[in-house]
Amino acid sequence: MTESGGRRLTDFAAFLFDLDGTLTYPDGAVPGAPEAVRAVKGLGKKVAVVTNNSRLSRRQLAAALRRSGVPLDEGEILTAVTATARLIAGQRPDARVLVVGSAGLRAELAEHGLRLVEGPPAEYVVAGVDPDLSYPKLARAVEAILSGAAFIAVNVDRFVPTETGRMPGAALVVGAIQAVVGRPPDVVVGKPAPGLLLEACRVLGVRPADALLVGDSLASDLPAARAAGTAFALVLSGVTSGADLAAVQDRPDYVFSTLTELRECLGV
Amino acid sequence: MTESGGRRLTDFAAFLFDLDGTLTYPDGAVPGAPEAVRAVKGLGKKVAVVTNNSRLSRRQLAAALRRSGVPLDEGEILTAVTATARLIAGQRPDARVLVVGSAGLRAELAEHGLRLVEGPPAEYVVAGVDPDLSYPKLARAVEAILSGAAFIAVNVDRFVPTETGRMPGAALVVGAIQAVVGRPPDVVVGKPAPGLLLEACRVLGVRPADALLVGDSLASDLPAARAAGTAFALVLSGVTSGADLAAVQDRPDYVFSTLTELRECLGV
Repeated sequence: MTESGGRRLTDFAAFLFDLDGTLTYPDGAVPGAPEAVRAVKGLGKKVAVVTNNSRLSRRQLAAALRRSGVPLDEGEILTAVTATARLIAGQRPDARVLVVGSAGLRAELAEHGLRLVEGPPAEYVVAGVDPDLSYPKLARAVEAILSGAAFIAVNVDRFVPTETGRMPGAALVVGAIQAVVGRPPDVVVGKPAPGLLLEACRVLGVRPADALLVGDSLASDLPAARAAGTAFALVLSGVTSGADLAAVQDRPDYVFSTLTELRECLGV
Repeated sequence: MTESGGRRLTDFAAFLFDLDGTLTYPDGAVPGAPEAVRAVKGLGKKVAVVTNNSRLSRRQLAAALRRSGVPLDEGEILTAVTATARLIAGQRPDARVLVVGSAGLRAELAEHGLRLVEGPPAEYVVAGVDPDLSYPKLARAVEAILSGAAFIAVNVDRFVPTETGRMPGAALVVGAIQAVVGRPPDVVVGKPAPGLLLEACRVLGVRPADALLVGDSLASDLPAARAAGTAFALVLSGVTSGADLAAVQDRPDYVFSTLTELRECLGV
């Protein structure tokens, strides 16, 4: 472990865990993850999962965590999809929303009372990972934005991990629309933006300064933590290699090779 | 007419005409275009059409021009699609090419002896306007590029004009792929790149300095002319308004409200 903050891990009131590559792989738990989460909870720390995942509902994610033996339930999960739905419903409860994204994203938006539409007029266009992408669907999204709809990206991840390897992430849809409308999204909800982490701190009732984000990405997790004002612990179980780490200027506050190492540093 | 170059139109040996918005609209000829092309030819000037169009073959474009009464045939048309096929066939005659684009693009590549493949391995990925876009198709293109294929954009037009209004152009596909692979195309063939104009000058046997590009776009035609070293005449029959023109620093060498005005300036 490298520790640059000089602060003991046990000083944090809340632990926010990234999901893919940190707690789970497409085929099961990251080794050491179930025990680490159990240890953090055993110390009385508040815990939440903060994930950019835009393909699955919280219920599906909770079921996957349970199958993997990670002791976290639906109420402890905050996804970029949920945060997107809350953001829009908070701004305009009856908004017409045109979705270029997954069934899970559509379901979550509908559950928040938003009206899903297939073409303009719409007040919001939401872009995520869309296995059913088509030219007409993207063309309708472009038309809606050019007619005044807000352009919301669930996240801008380039890839998502799957059981058969990595596949294009929400960046595919965001990049397509952005190139044609000629401007980036008005809001990016997921990491590296800070919104997801700030919402998790609000729900848990802790100040960001008392929270630690544990994640595997220097491109997504690190800047999100910095922008939200939480500390950041990098685990090398996912997308970041030791060589990647050696190349960055902005060092994580903590670096662990695995969550087992994090657990050991908690003294449990 | 505004003339900044101080050079008479009749001094040019070759006239290169943009197509959409300059010679034709989706439903027929731009008023004055048939007469202007006939006048230029009558003066013994060399003529070519240089178009970013990536949906139609040269044969289809020539048929559309004939129906509109514009006296130009297939051999006088150079499209970004043709230039793309020549570029790749010139570099690697038996290349495997993965196309995210139209049937017209696929046909032209095949006519140049290239092998069309549906997934990696491929030496080239070519991006154009694709009405049959899908997530798996884009994912295979991303995978091919990340495995070493060259990334070629037929053009990066944001929109294409159609009879029912403008629709997203090749930028939709290029932007989607670019956002995921993390780099822009290795080559953009169409305007604003100069390749299409240089190829036209080569085919016509004239120096770029002796050629005049006539087009309707400050975003596409003007920079292509500058990069190729031809003069540029803007016509206000297409995408550019007088207000757009007033806002630019780099002035076209000539400005005509219509091709009728250009014809009159030729003295015919």
